[in-house]
Amino acid sequence: MLTLTTLLLGLTALPVLANDQLAYQLTEELTVEVGPRIAGSLADAKAVAWATNKFQLLGYDKVWTEQFNTPFWQRGNARLEIISPYPQSLVLTALGGSVGTDAEGITASIVMFNSLEDLMQAKREEVLGKIVFINKAMTKDKVGSQYGKVVGARSKGAVEAARLGAKAIIIRSVGTSNNRFAHTGKMTYEDNIAKIPAVAISVPDAIQLTKIIAKAPEAKLRLNMENHTQDAISHNVIAEITGSERPDEIVLIGAHLDSWDQGTGALDDGAGVGLVMATGALIKKLGQPKRTIRVVLYGNEEGGLVGARAYAAKHASELAKHVVASESDFGAGRIWQFDSKFGPQSLGFAKEIQQLLSGHGIALGPNKAFGGPDVSVLAALGVPVVSLEQDGTDYFDFHHTPNDTFDKIDPAALAQNQQAWILMTTALANSTIDLRK
Amino acid sequence: MLTLTTLLLGLTALPVLANDQLAYQLTEELTVEVGPRIAGSLADAKAVAWATNKFQLLGYDKVWTEQFNTPFWQRGNARLEIISPYPQSLVLTALGGSVGTDAEGITASIVMFNSLEDLMQAKREEVLGKIVFINKAMTKDKVGSQYGKVVGARSKGAVEAARLGAKAIIIRSVGTSNNRFAHTGKMTYEDNIAKIPAVAISVPDAIQLTKIIAKAPEAKLRLNMENHTQDAISHNVIAEITGSERPDEIVLIGAHLDSWDQGTGALDDGAGVGLVMATGALIKKLGQPKRTIRVVLYGNEEGGLVGARAYAAKHASELAKHVVASESDFGAGRIWQFDSKFGPQSLGFAKEIQQLLSGHGIALGPNKAFGGPDVSVLAALGVPVVSLEQDGTDYFDFHHTPNDTFDKIDPAALAQNQQAWILMTTALANSTIDLRK
Repeated sequence: MLTLTTLLLGLTALPVLANDQLAYQLTEELTVEVGPRIAGSLADAKAVAWATNKFQLLGYDKVWTEQFNTPFWQRGNARLEIISPYPQSLVLTALGGSVGTDAEGITASIVMFNSLEDLMQAKREEVLGKIVFINKAMTKDKVGSQYGKVVGARSKGAVEAARLGAKAIIIRSVGTSNNRFAHTGKMTYEDNIAKIPAVAISVPDAIQLTKIIAKAPEAKLRLNMENHTQDAISHNVIAEITGSERPDEIVLIGAHLDSWDQGTGALDDGAGVGLVMATGALIKKLGQPKRTIRVVLYGNEEGGLVGARAYAAKHASELAKHVVASESDFGAGRIWQFDSKFGPQSLGFAKEIQQLLSGHGIALGPNKAFGGPDVSVLAALGVPVVSLEQDGTDYFDFHHTPNDTFDKIDPAALAQNQQAWILMTTALANSTIDLRK
Repeated sequence: MLTLTTLLLGLTALPVLANDQLAYQLTEELTVEVGPRIAGSLADAKAVAWATNKFQLLGYDKVWTEQFNTPFWQRGNARLEIISPYPQSLVLTALGGSVGTDAEGITASIVMFNSLEDLMQAKREEVLGKIVFINKAMTKDKVGSQYGKVVGARSKGAVEAARLGAKAIIIRSVGTSNNRFAHTGKMTYEDNIAKIPAVAISVPDAIQLTKIIAKAPEAKLRLNMENHTQDAISHNVIAEITGSERPDEIVLIGAHLDSWDQGTGALDDGAGVGLVMATGALIKKLGQPKRTIRVVLYGNEEGGLVGARAYAAKHASELAKHVVASESDFGAGRIWQFDSKFGPQSLGFAKEIQQLLSGHGIALGPNKAFGGPDVSVLAALGVPVVSLEQDGTDYFDFHHTPNDTFDKIDPAALAQNQQAWILMTTALANSTIDLRK
């Protein structure tokens, strides 16, 4: 194994270890100097400028940006109050993309459902003219498996509530912490269905509201909210370490540069940005890889993979030259598993990569890697993908809340990530295997 | 011990255990039905009405309120932004009592100090025209010993900064959590010293601001804030279980009914309110005590012991009949120690009480009990006091933040508190010992 590692890196691994905090330092810079950076904002443009400059300073061979059009959603003031019988304010956040209310706000009785599915089975007369509350709790595990089961209330709740005549929708935060932070995230509307305001309340507030409803089923609430959306532009930022032998073959590693506006986007996805930027830079210091390593910092992932779709469209003609792609976008926890999605002839190579990683406590996972949210757009177009699976047990304690800040990152865990990314990316870039086969 | 317990309670302890969630239920009612209840507010008046009614329903022999005048401080919108070189907002809270800014806000450079003491040693030219930032961290322990060492920045920082010509003061939250909540609490002004706005930022924001200052010592910030204060009234709510043999001798147990406005005041001090209300009610069910048990729910503790001083003034002539006093105001953690502040002849009785409590894991502490913040006013006037010391390791993770909510209370820990309060209060009320001696 050591021989293989040494061979792949072209050197011993020691020079890498000497700079094992690079990803951490880059994440710190981005989150301190730019902070929150929602797509289309001035901060988003600053993040693009920061990344472009930083790639150049890190010695990347090529650096460029690719512009795309995007909505720019802006959160305004928001207030959610119980007005009777127990007046008090609740901690809320607008869901990303939600419309606001008019100046008087929306005042209505509440009707609670335990899930999106329960709402979808409700009768119109139960919901008409009311504010819907979906109170579905999320439990935690290493892979965040509950997220997909709960997030439907966020993404589709407004449409389903409006279909039944609701005036607004409140969801319990899609998160696993009992801290009093509300969890934002993308919601959607449909044509021909009324666009109603959509907010999340924190888990303690959901518990509080449930208690209030139990005592007072006719409780009345008022929601005031001032959001708006405008047309804007953003950019994917792309940088390459040019391959020495097969420069036209691309090993794509990515992360997303934008973040929600509440926190500083350290876990989502500052850490990923730091990791992939560091990976290319540190590999280059060890010697030029055979294939080209292309680092893509996607824009507007949070608003619905806007940058990822723009990338796929722009690069449609060269996708066959995308040998493999992978993304870091699940926080900053330790990596515990390597997954591939290769053709059947390449499974032995997946095992070899895992052996390279085994010294870092990383096991071999199934050959059905997701790749990451942005990279999944490429996977759907036939690009082989790999995933370095991070321990996400605590990820949804922080994700999309004001509490996603740099101090939550464990530098030792991020250093382990960096080692794994360097080893994996080097192996992929120095191989000649066609992973589609 | 069992014999003594049985004797003191007049019954076995079993009937008490059958209702061991009463304090928990009362705390839940107060925090759900009233929620945040800052002194002078409508919610404060609702809390007074709730407590009065609840004492009556619980079977107390006498229930009354005592009005006092108080300032009513109201938080308005507040925003703290770094405007250069790294524009972003910080999570802040106005300190209680702080003035606001005018509509344009205050824009100034920042100057950081590591402590109030460092600020007090600064030269005027270092501070003049700037926004002061005091960045003193608090560490946690069982008894919250660091609070007193850090809280000076909050209570006196504005005066010391203004003395040197500062425009505003920001402090690092006096708290032990790295969650992104800012910790409010009482601050003070002095006559003839300019009243400058005073805010706290959360611990992650303090870390962020420190990083920003390290990169950009000339960083500029803008603070906008709209607070105001008006004259108002509030009330202490008092209820008694009349003594069967010595009705004029008072065993006072207290808590404070008001809370800060950010959370629902579950730990501070809803749990204390639930405990002392439950204690009198459950003791009465076991038989009338020999001395009178007086439960005092103090108003406006948070604004500076306003209700406690009003109580002491109004009851000055009967303080000699206050046999002993105690307060629950340190959250809802398990009790681990019993402290007394008795005359030397009564130390044997303190040991007897501790023996009663020993089955609940409670040790004997020193004969220098604090009694609790409101009760300390009585202690200063010579009233003997006792303390049931709670484990406060996590208390300052939640204290004075939006995160002080009912879901943070462990019902088993609160049940242990309730048992201890019943045992201790019964022993004190059924004794004939003059604890001053």
